[in-house]
This record gives sequence, structure tokens and C-alpha cells, in this order.
Amino acid sequence: VTTGVDLVALPGLPEIRPGDDLAALLVEAAARVGGLRPTDVLAVAHKVVSKAEGRLVALNSVFPGWEARELAAEHGKDARHVQVILDESAEVLRADAGRLICRTPHGFVCANAGVDASNAGAPDTLVLLPADPDASARALRHSLGCAVVITDSFGRAWRLGQCEVAIGCAGLAPAEDWRGRPDATGRELSATVIAIADEVAAAADLARGKDTGEPAVRIRGLERHVTAEDGDGAAALIRPLEDDLFR
Amino acid sequence: VTTGVDLVALPGLPEIRPGDDLAALLVEAAARVGGLRPTDVLAVAHKVVSKAEGRLVALNSVFPGWEARELAAEHGKDARHVQVILDESAEVLRADAGRLICRTPHGFVCANAGVDASNAGAPDTLVLLPADPDASARALRHSLGCAVVITDSFGRAWRLGQCEVAIGCAGLAPAEDWRGRPDATGRELSATVIAIADEVAAAADLARGKDTGEPAVRIRGLERHVTAEDGDGAAALIRPLEDDLFR
Repeated sequence: VTTGVDLVALPGLPEIRPGDDLAALLVEAAARVGGLRPTDVLAVAHKVVSKAEGRLVALNSVFPGWEARELAAEHGKDARHVQVILDESAEVLRADAGRLICRTPHGFVCANAGVDASNAGAPDTLVLLPADPDASARALRHSLGCAVVITDSFGRAWRLGQCEVAIGCAGLAPAEDWRGRPDATGRELSATVIAIADEVAAAADLARGKDTGEPAVRIRGLERHVTAEDGDGAAALIRPLEDDLFR
Repeated sequence: VTTGVDLVALPGLPEIRPGDDLAALLVEAAARVGGLRPTDVLAVAHKVVSKAEGRLVALNSVFPGWEARELAAEHGKDARHVQVILDESAEVLRADAGRLICRTPHGFVCANAGVDASNAGAPDTLVLLPADPDASARALRHSLGCAVVITDSFGRAWRLGQCEVAIGCAGLAPAEDWRGRPDATGRELSATVIAIADEVAAAADLARGKDTGEPAVRIRGLERHVTAEDGDGAAALIRPLEDDLFR
């Protein structure tokens, strides 16, 4: 029997502010499209999670140090913005084209350590990544009763454009390991581990318009990846430093 | 009005062999789930495209040279398999853990230059990437009358696991450029270019089981990305060499 996968953006979510009960607002929005089932996956753009958690920095509260001033001058950026990026970075891997490619304390490698000025909800305000996105996903899962993926857009080393990836997840197996399984003809698959949570994040991005205020997308039809436990989280998709292909 | 995105794998495609009329077989399979509309996107795993195009190599027809023998000995691989990988590579970027990371003549950076022994349909046979996947997508589009994305699983520099990406496309805008557009509060978006075709490939992967012989997935609800022309193809998502972050 052929079953499909269906995605729908939750309509009518309000602008999220620090301290808001995001889970309650998501439940309310989900009710407009039939609610959430335990086998659903809800993909949530990290920005609303960060805002609800108060992970915001007002630019006028930031005093840039010498390194931030130097990088800012070199790359035509606001030194206060650069200071926040440095504060959110464990390491700056590369700086070019006005973009800092950083490794965050979580282990994510992404532009500007995930610090973003767009859609911050207030002028001169920066949005940070959640401090522990897997914990954020677990908390939402426990309130919503369905699997949760928290997403952000990351660039890629060898491809142009950004793809949405999973920075947090709970109740979803983040990866599917096919190593050692036979293919249709009995030959061992040379593949591989499939980054299911990242594919979920990418799929969800197709169902929302970035300018329409639809940060949450419900995905139905992924029962085989939904788990009874919170699971390993999206941290399982971070390539360990010692396995980094460019060191 | 909230509209969703729906994905369904085309059921009952037979094993594809060199010379098969893949488009006709896809139309037949699509008919079982209601057919294809001009605004649909059909994501097709490259393996069936490569097979129909005869992009197969029998291992016993390969005579490995010294470089292949050396790499094979070093990495515990079959020297004939390595020779085929070298033949399909413009450059070997890195060799480790039994895996060669190569840049193909198309410009793709991927493991083993996309050469794969699993699900080849015959023993001791390797499947190559299509010679020109965008041309393959255009040809399929003209027969099918819908947008087409041809996909493969690529690893990532900084994340574990593979994600399905677009190696060819036609009739779908491969990227959506948000640079310069205002966000909801009128501030210019720091983002970015979204790799729509890669997100489509990733989404499609969720709707099929790799062991169930479902290489084609129909995606409905992406009207805004479907174009009247063939368009730039997935080649537009290849990061140019001079822009490579690791040179």
C-alpha cells in the first residue's frame, strides 16, 4: 500500500516574544489544521524558539572588543554584531565576503554562528541560536505530544544556496543507518547513514513562505522514524571535530 | 489560505535496464496514483536514470592502472572499482576511511565520484552518474510534462549522514534568491539563497524506502517554484571552484 507524506504550515501564529508559551501557541495554530497526532512531526524554525526563550541581544548593549572591531572593519560589518558572533563561536573557521564561518559551542558549523538580524521582531536586535536546541525540542515535544525538529538554514561547503537542517530534535530518529543491510539484489549497500532529521527540516522549508510568518510545519507520514523516546537529538548529526575532513 | 505539500512514491516501477523507455515506465507508474500534472515535480533517483542511459560498467571489463592499484591497496578497495572512480573524477580531494572524496567533471563533490555498486541490477556491475544530469532531467520533463529533479545522496563536510540533493533538474527554479528582500519588519534579510532543488530532493527521500524499489516520488504543492522553461538546472547549485571555501 502506498502512503504519502503531507506537509502543512500552521497558519496564524502571532509574533513570538520572550516569555511567550510557544507550545500553547503552536497547539492553538495546529488546531486550525486538525491538530497534532503522536506520530506527527512538527518542524519549528529556530527563530521562534530563540525568541520565546529570550535568546535576543540588543545591539546597543554590546561593547565590541579589539578582535570584533578589526574583523568588522575588514569585512564591512557592525562591530557590535561581530562581537555577538564571536561570543557565540567556539572558533572562527573562515572570514570572507562579509560572512564569518564559525563553529558554535554546540558544534554547528554555520555562517555568523547562527546570529541573525532579520525577523528579530525589534530593530537593532539580534537573534541567537537556542542554548541547547535538543533540550528545546524535548521540552516542546513533551508539551505538544508529537515529534519535534528545530531548524535553521545552513550553507554547504561545496554547494551554493542554503538548506534547512535540524539543529534540535526529539521523538524522531535523527539518522537511519543502512550500513550492512542488503540491497534489493542481496548486495551490501555501500550507503550509508541517511540524515533523516535534516531531510525533514529541508522538506518543511518547502511548505512555508519565509515572508508569511509560518515558522511551524506539520509533517504527517513519517511514522517509521517517530520514536517512543526523545532519542539522540540532532547533536547526533554533528560531525565530530576529529572526523573533520578539513583538518 | 493554507495549502500543503504532498509527496507520494510511484508504486510498481520495474527494475530498469539499459535502453528502457524510463519516461514511459514513469508515466505508467504515475497513473496508479492519479497521474502527473504540469505543476507537479517528479523526483527521480539517479540510479534508474543512469541504468536506462546505460551508464553501467562491468567490473571484469576494467583494467586498473598503477594509481588505482595503489589507492585500492591503501584503502582496502577493489582496484577495478577505484579505476572507475578515477575515470569519473576530475580530482580526488581526499582519500580516507575507504572512501574517496572526488570532484566529478560535472563539478559535484561527493564520495567515490558517485560510482555505486549497490542496486546495480547485476552482480559485479557499477552504476555511474548520468553524463549530463540536467540534460537527462530536460529529456524526462519533455516526455512527462512536469518538472523533474534527478537526485543522489551526498555527504556533507560538517555534518554526519547523507542528504539527497539535486544533481539535475528541469522546469523547477533550483534556487530562490531572498537577498535584498525585506523581512516582515522591513529589515533586509541577511539570508540568502535557498537551494530549493536540494530541499525537494531531500523531501522526496522521506517518501520512499530505499529497499522497496521506489526511485520516483511525485511532489504536489510547489507551484510557485515550477517554471515554464527548463531553467538553469541543478548545475546552478554547484559552488564554483574559485569560490571553494577550502582552497
